[in-house]
Order: sequence, then structure tokens, then C-alpha cells
Amino acid sequence: MSTLPAHATIREVGLRDGLQSIRTILPTERKIEWIADAYRAGQREIEVGSFVPARLLPQLADTAELVTYAKTLPGLFVSVLVPNLKGAERAIETNADLMLIPVSASREHSLANLRKLPDEVIAEVARMRAARDAAGSATLIEGGIGTAFGCTIQGDVDQVEVLRCMQALLDAGVDRVSLADTVGYASPSAVRELFDKARDIAGERLWCGHFHDTRGLALANVYAALQTGVTRFDATLAGIGGCPHAPGASGNASSEDLAFMLADMGIETGIDIPALLALRKKIAEWLPNETLHGSLWRAGLPKTAGTRCAVSEIDV
Amino acid sequence: MSTLPAHATIREVGLRDGLQSIRTILPTERKIEWIADAYRAGQREIEVGSFVPARLLPQLADTAELVTYAKTLPGLFVSVLVPNLKGAERAIETNADLMLIPVSASREHSLANLRKLPDEVIAEVARMRAARDAAGSATLIEGGIGTAFGCTIQGDVDQVEVLRCMQALLDAGVDRVSLADTVGYASPSAVRELFDKARDIAGERLWCGHFHDTRGLALANVYAALQTGVTRFDATLAGIGGCPHAPGASGNASSEDLAFMLADMGIETGIDIPALLALRKKIAEWLPNETLHGSLWRAGLPKTAGTRCAVSEIDV
Repeated sequence: MSTLPAHATIREVGLRDGLQSIRTILPTERKIEWIADAYRAGQREIEVGSFVPARLLPQLADTAELVTYAKTLPGLFVSVLVPNLKGAERAIETNADLMLIPVSASREHSLANLRKLPDEVIAEVARMRAARDAAGSATLIEGGIGTAFGCTIQGDVDQVEVLRCMQALLDAGVDRVSLADTVGYASPSAVRELFDKARDIAGERLWCGHFHDTRGLALANVYAALQTGVTRFDATLAGIGGCPHAPGASGNASSEDLAFMLADMGIETGIDIPALLALRKKIAEWLPNETLHGSLWRAGLPKTAGTRCAVSEIDV
Repeated sequence: MSTLPAHATIREVGLRDGLQSIRTILPTERKIEWIADAYRAGQREIEVGSFVPARLLPQLADTAELVTYAKTLPGLFVSVLVPNLKGAERAIETNADLMLIPVSASREHSLANLRKLPDEVIAEVARMRAARDAAGSATLIEGGIGTAFGCTIQGDVDQVEVLRCMQALLDAGVDRVSLADTVGYASPSAVRELFDKARDIAGERLWCGHFHDTRGLALANVYAALQTGVTRFDATLAGIGGCPHAPGASGNASSEDLAFMLADMGIETGIDIPALLALRKKIAEWLPNETLHGSLWRAGLPKTAGTRCAVSEIDV
């Protein structure tokens, strides 16, 4: 039997990857309530938004305010997405703990999404790093390699190219690298193979797995990545986010189902699942016109998981 | 990296486990169309129904007719569920290829469901075996151990008891044994551990994994079982079946998502996924008032899975 880690972290990315992909614009006070409740439920890493122009993503226009609030919560590690140097400067100013720069390993996806080639984005990373260091900032830089398992535009994405981008990001000075199955093409076998190779390149700087549940495989892919030593996973509460190419499809792995799977395997996450389910219920009320996902909220926790997971009893 | 099998079999149990749990009674001609289409889509093992009294499960009253039809399809391996000796006699008469006897490892679940203790059911197996042999029949006998990972009534189910039931079934003369997560309590860790131990007891007679997706973990659990050498999985098209304790929850792993996962991992199933999705569409029309599940039908197959899976191109 493979050795699994004793602890794992769920990074909540619903406020960024989730909210950016749905129509409803959640008011800032609701987002603050989300962050506060997630924190109370034991979540200690949250990606609160993106520093992108508000005209492009009006849903995330309040990111600076959210970083400022989130930074008041002791021990909360606050991430933001930044697409370029300008965004990075705002992340540094607001004192975010980490800024994630997305890089598409798919050339065509990169051009369609950012109008830049992957290597042009990576060149920008070196400038972000310089700006960060010049400011004497401690904000970590994460290079998130998207479409790492395939692309809806280009189709197959060569592993060699994914790993080349990873090496280039490390050479450009990122502190962390991650792999994302942006469109839900990954299988557990592909995950094990690519994460094993990524580990050889990045070692402890390999930071996070980001799996979309578009075709139902997100949790199987998490389990595959766990077996390669990955201990941090992006997820969105209620699986919000969807996929522009598959109306009604799920976004990321749902945080609550992932928290249950990890707890049921005896992997400590620090998350109080009933509290997370209570927050999910609020979010369902806040987003009445969006398709939500996940299974645990419906079924509730097992009658007694006493011997396997330390969660309070609940009948949801 | 673990070695995964080159081939795996999806046993379609939608006509039994699926239809027995929903309100709609599907007419016999629809069931025959289902079997015919599943066969054309490459499915070669189908559980067509149960030999139980029609007053208990009127949905499955036409099981004998379905076995008779299914047996006309060359190379189709036809299974039925039988709860007792009387059911076994009908399976033998109709010349089913396999009869599955469910045994609950949970004492309380067994009493609530069958009004018998697990060992009383196992004693019945010896009589079924005798009847089978006396008839000179080639119908295989499978002992399916349910609630093997926990029980909604009793809570935890001791692994020792599950394995004791398995040994007792083998001693009583079953040809095959299987493990079922009847209520969706299993985690990938628990699956690996229990299937590894079961393999030690049953060897090649360990036949099938049956995972409900009640809490979203069915495919992760399949992946865990694959790593222990299991190559046969029960599934229901569109995940029909549900769970009496979680209204709206999924039943088994959905056949189409499972077929995609296996294909995407390069594991041959013989299934033509687009043909299976076409059948799913029919079933959705036949069951307009039931909650269907699964993800692939919505998202479609990846743009090009050419290097990984041998499925025709489709944009569903």
C-alpha cells in the first residue's frame, strides 16, 4: 500500500476560480462572510481574488479589500491570482502571502486567453520577481501551469512542454510551481506520471494540484496526486466555477467532498466538515441561480466515522 | 507507479440495482432495448434483474424474460441477483451465467433487509450450490458482501467480520466473491486495505468491486481497487439507483464516467463511449422523472484523447 501523507491542505479557490466563472456578482460583504466562515471552519489557505482589470472581471473588482480583510485573520495564508506585472504590484502593495501567475502549457490556450505565448508570460515572471525583491516584500510567487493535462483548443498537450515550462518558471525565480487540469482532461494515471516527473524537477517547490471535475474525475485525480506526495489541493465550495465549454458542468473539486475524502482516509486537514457544510448552505442561498455541485451536502456524513475521521456528528 | 491492469470489465447493473431503487417501472421492451444497445456499445456483462417476489419489487418482475433475451446475444455474460434458494432455482432454470447472492456484513443491515443473520444467508448458499450441482447447471455463484465499508444502521463494520463472511462464503462453495460499498462510506484508503486483505483470502475468486457514489468517491474508490488488481466493477448508466437514506444522491458509479476514466488511463474495456452516451440519452428520455447523475454526458469527451484512449471522436 502506498504511503499517504498525514496532513493535507485544501486551498479554497471558490472566491477566485469559482466566482470568476459565474454570472452572479457576490457583494463584498458576502465574500467577507465567506472568508470568515471558511476560516472558522478551519480553512487556512484562501485565494481571495484576482488583480485583473475590473472591466474584464467585475466579479473580482474588490480583491484588494478582501486581501486586507483576510490578512486580519491570524494564521490565514492569503493568495491572489495575478496575470501580469501590474497585478503583481498590487499583490505586493496589499501584502498578500502568495501571488499565483497562471501559465498555459498549451500554446493555443495561452494565446487565446492572454494573447501571449507561454514563454512571454514566463518572461513577465522575472519582472514580477524583481519588483517583489525591490519592494522588500515577502509575497511568495507561484507559477501555476494550466492545461497541463490537455486543452480544449489544442487538444493534447505534450508532457515535455509542461515540464519545460516548469523548469523555465523555476529558472525565472518562482518560489512554488503547481499543475492544473484546467479543463478536466486528466486521468489518475496521467496525474501520477506527470506529478512524479514534476517532483523530480521541482522537489519541495512543487506546491499544489488543481483538478477540475468536468468529467467527474477530480477526486480520483486528487487520490492519484496524494500518492506522489502532493499535500495541497485547490477546491471550490459546492464545486462552483463550471466550465465555459460544458454548460452546467462542475468547476473544481468541491471543497466539502474533498474534505470528507481526506478525513475518511485519516488525512488531517484541520477542517470542521459540518461547519463547512453550513457555509455551503449559505452560499447556496447567495447563489440561487447558479448550478452547484458536490455530493456530501446531500448525503451527510456517515453515521459513525468514529474510527476513521475526527469530525463532529451531523445529520444534514 | 503502481501497475494497473491492461483490461477491465464494467458490469452494468443499472437494470437491477438502478431500476430497483427508483419509482418508474420501465417496460420490458425498453429493458430489452437497453440490453441490446449496451451490448452494441460493447458491454459484455449485464446484471439484468433479480429473482425476488414480484410483490416486493414489481420493477423487476420480468427478470426471467430478460435473462432469456440476454442469453441470445453471443458472448454476453448474464447475471442475476438471487436472495434465496427459490431465486437460485429460477436462475438455474433460466440458465443465467451467474447468480449473485448478497450478504450483508453488517448484522443489523442483514436483519433489517433480509430478516436473516449473515450466517443464515451463508447457510442458504450451501443449499443453492447443492441445487445448482444437482441440476448439472453451469451457473456460477457469486457471494457479494454488502455494507463492507460501513452501514447506515449499524455504523462501522469490522473488517474482521467482512473477511470472516468472505471465508465462510468460499467455504460454502461460492465460485466468486465481491465487496460492495452499499451506502457510499468507503474511502480509497479503506478500499486498498480491504481489497488487499480480500485478495489474500480469495485469490482469483475475488471478482468485483461495487461502489456507490453517494458521497462522490466512487471513481476514486475504483482507482484504489484497480491498484490492488481488481479488474471488474459494477456501475449503472447515468448513476441511477440513488440511496434511500439520501434523497437525490447518486447510486452506483456511473457507467459512462467509469468507462471514460478507464479509457483515459489506457485500460481497455471494449466499450464504445459515444454509443454508451447515446444509450444514456435514451434512458434520460425513458426516465423523465428520475434524477440522473454522471458528468461525461454534459462535458463530452476531450477534444483529442488520441494518444491515450481508443474512442471515436464526438462532441456531445
